[in-house]
Amino acid sequence: MRIVRLGEPGEEREAVLVDDEHAAWLPPGGGDVRQRGEEALANGERVALQGIRVGAPLRPGKIVCVGLNYADHAAEGGQQAPAEPILFMKVPDTVVGPYDDVVIPRGGDKTDWEVELGVVIGRQATALADEAAAMDHVAGYVLCNDVSERAFQLERGGQWDKGKNCATFCPMGPWFVTADELPDPQAVALGLDVNDTAYQDSSTKQMIFPVAHLVWYISQFMTLYPGDVISTGTPAGVGAGQKPPVFLRTGDVMRVWASGLGEQRSTLISGDS
Amino acid sequence: MRIVRLGEPGEEREAVLVDDEHAAWLPPGGGDVRQRGEEALANGERVALQGIRVGAPLRPGKIVCVGLNYADHAAEGGQQAPAEPILFMKVPDTVVGPYDDVVIPRGGDKTDWEVELGVVIGRQATALADEAAAMDHVAGYVLCNDVSERAFQLERGGQWDKGKNCATFCPMGPWFVTADELPDPQAVALGLDVNDTAYQDSSTKQMIFPVAHLVWYISQFMTLYPGDVISTGTPAGVGAGQKPPVFLRTGDVMRVWASGLGEQRSTLISGDS
Repeated sequence: MRIVRLGEPGEEREAVLVDDEHAAWLPPGGGDVRQRGEEALANGERVALQGIRVGAPLRPGKIVCVGLNYADHAAEGGQQAPAEPILFMKVPDTVVGPYDDVVIPRGGDKTDWEVELGVVIGRQATALADEAAAMDHVAGYVLCNDVSERAFQLERGGQWDKGKNCATFCPMGPWFVTADELPDPQAVALGLDVNDTAYQDSSTKQMIFPVAHLVWYISQFMTLYPGDVISTGTPAGVGAGQKPPVFLRTGDVMRVWASGLGEQRSTLISGDS
Repeated sequence: MRIVRLGEPGEEREAVLVDDEHAAWLPPGGGDVRQRGEEALANGERVALQGIRVGAPLRPGKIVCVGLNYADHAAEGGQQAPAEPILFMKVPDTVVGPYDDVVIPRGGDKTDWEVELGVVIGRQATALADEAAAMDHVAGYVLCNDVSERAFQLERGGQWDKGKNCATFCPMGPWFVTADELPDPQAVALGLDVNDTAYQDSSTKQMIFPVAHLVWYISQFMTLYPGDVISTGTPAGVGAGQKPPVFLRTGDVMRVWASGLGEQRSTLISGDS
């Protein structure tokens, strides 16, 4: 089942995809999204996607990001592969839809991209006993672009969060797919082009720490709640890893994709105004 | 005006303090809290605080934390005072009330305290032009304890966030005071005792980067929204800075205070069950 949220910013309504061009509105009111999705597929009012804005498919409670989770990406940044997962935070107010513009922040001249598999939590998890218990807590998956301002992240002192939380820095979607439709999260092809040049093209099978390990691991440090998202790290091919480095400029278009998770298309605009 | 939220967890209702023992319920529905507070003071139903749980006075959109913002605290950790503010994130799901228990996470044997002045944002701020513009964006202040697990924060690889986001690690309150009642945020005395031993006892006048600078600075990296909180760093006297270090154990009681912001009292409980 693929869940979307359709409508203008702040007015999105949940729907379930019937096919690639049609959806059915979910009954309002919250509660179990799969149950409401089944109901909508059976009885919901249909809507054509043509001409309707697609927002981010969920509003995460928190977004836990994993750093350097692909060996080739660690290497391109001159970093060693970590001995255990590196975690940092992206605040949910950075989330935008999969076709919304991304703003280059004022003073930011090293804005960069990171295609990532997002894991959506379905059940509360605290200090899980082992990896075997982890996957029961996963509701599904969503495509994320962990947009990053490298100067803010790495050259302004301290922690990475400073370069990860600019407004619009988390395009998400187009849909959230339930875990039953994506049974192996380590077999997702994913990539990213800028202006039709492919920069990232990899697979989640290259992760250092797979999804089950990440869910278990993160639950040792914080409580994961339903609707939280884990953004699981990016493979090689970010702009900062190019020789010479390539950063995003106004008018650039990122195309971000993953098998089973759809495709994003984000245009860069200037935050200078 | 001092705003509180009263009631059991998840069922809190906003009220305004009439005196230290009585409050008046705010009219429901959100919107400008000062206007609703004035209305409540004039016409609201009164309630005695005795016997009612006091929750955190607000539910922040995000919590931006400032690291090493007091020179004596940087020195006690063997760190240099930073050239510009260090930022990291605390997720809002860690917020608890000022008298709620704090959980020592399973596997955490270096749980520590940090009394901090919290700044509550009142107006959206992006890339503010200068510090002079900053204070117009401050709605008021709140007392925060930036509880930290030092082993998770410093010994487990990567970023500090790992030791800052355990469940219950952000006692907040008891009240949110509007900026008009605390005109100089650089003249707040603040401190923290554990089991009646004073460990922190300082003043916000010791901050390296004052509140106006922090609001301006953070707005360069992310958009601040109404209801966001900036936790402005802690003075010397944390547990990790003692010789030998002192960390929190089950049954310990933290008393956290700041002039004009009230007092917290948090009992440590075990997360091992």
